[in-house]
Amino acid sequence: MRQSLARLEFHTAGRGLTEITREVADWIGTTGIATGLLTLTCLHTSASLLITENASGAVRRDLLAWLDRVAPEGGHYAHDDEGPDDMPAHLKAVLTNPNLSLPVAGGRPMLGTWQGIFLAEHRRAPHRRAIALHLLGE
Amino acid sequence: MRQSLARLEFHTAGRGLTEITREVADWIGTTGIATGLLTLTCLHTSASLLITENASGAVRRDLLAWLDRVAPEGGHYAHDDEGPDDMPAHLKAVLTNPNLSLPVAGGRPMLGTWQGIFLAEHRRAPHRRAIALHLLGE
Amino acid sequence: MRQSLARLEFHTAGRGLTEITREVADWIGTTGIATGLLTLTCLHTSASLLITENASGAVRRDLLAWLDRVAPEGGHYAHDDEGPDDMPAHLKAVLTNPNLSLPVAGGRPMLGTWQGIFLAEHRRAPHRRAIALHLLGE
Repeated sequence: MRQSLARLEFHTAGRGLTEITREVADWIGTTGIATGLLTLTCLHTSASLLITENASGAVRRDLLAWLDRVAPEGGHYAHDDEGPDDMPAHLKAVLTNPNLSLPVAGGRPMLGTWQGIFLAEHRRAPHRRAIALHLLGE
Repeated sequence: MRQSLARLEFHTAGRGLTEITREVADWIGTTGIATGLLTLTCLHTSASLLITENASGAVRRDLLAWLDRVAPEGGHYAHDDEGPDDMPAHLKAVLTNPNLSLPVAGGRPMLGTWQGIFLAEHRRAPHRRAIALHLLGE
Repeated sequence: MRQSLARLEFHTAGRGLTEITREVADWIGTTGIATGLLTLTCLHTSASLLITENASGAVRRDLLAWLDRVAPEGGHYAHDDEGPDDMPAHLKAVLTNPNLSLPVAGGRPMLGTWQGIFLAEHRRAPHRRAIALHLLGE
């Protein structure tokens, strides 16, 4: 049993979902660990990680629109240092969570047929986002 | 230190919560691992896993009604290939998350007195749902 | 590779967020494990764990007010055995999740510059809350 740690960086184009399933699987491949437990954590409070359907672009658009309805911009926040999208971004990150743990089998994260791992950018502007990856197994 | 992987299937009766605490504990028993880390992941994007009170049926009914209010059906979704409950189901799965990690002690998942592990079915129709289980420990 | 398990208790002052990053880091220090995987679980169904910005008190106030809007008190719940804040507390715990997994490096949980680990109390009254901690590594 051994473990491997890494940090991957992604450039986001502003509010939206970036699928990172392939990058995560590629990193697992470099560790030589075939069976184990993968943990990802997004090192930011206005971006997060989530799993959703990766086949339909409409799902991703509906998901973003829904997040806007659940955590809308508005003048009612005390925290708006970085603009009107600042506090809604923190709320969306809490709702979707920065962390993700997945079993790994055959050198791949265990996902259903339609599941993909997404980095969710909740700020309007493009950002550079860091994700820590940890894999424990053999 | 060693690890064990399994896949359990559950039949759901449509929208609702199915407690799976006993099935999960039973599986842990078969591994012979007494102390460790348990990770569960639901291999679907319209069902999920959550922990909530397992004593009161009213809690589960209120929780389902709340999910319907937060992610209502309606004509405003772009993605409705499989009917009006399709996109709300994806949203509820993102809100509640497909993944769950719990320490294991004495051969049992560490849960509070009133906590139970539930498989949440977010589609109207009955489904067969697969959950991957991973246990690492000794 | 070895593992360590503990239980920490915190007194909350009623609805609010208590940062526990330091207590968690201190416990990691006592285990002598420098690199590994940390898992926390809150053993209650009306309190939870979350990661958010720890620099601004306004973020925490906005977050609490938002949780009140998403899961408001009201006469529409079937479950109100312990008062009007009972069911909303269960809903907020499901929305924010009781569990958290983080890689550990250099004897510290891997967090971004502005990230803190918070115990979220969702009941109005002060409570004593137990958190189980599990660390696997070397």
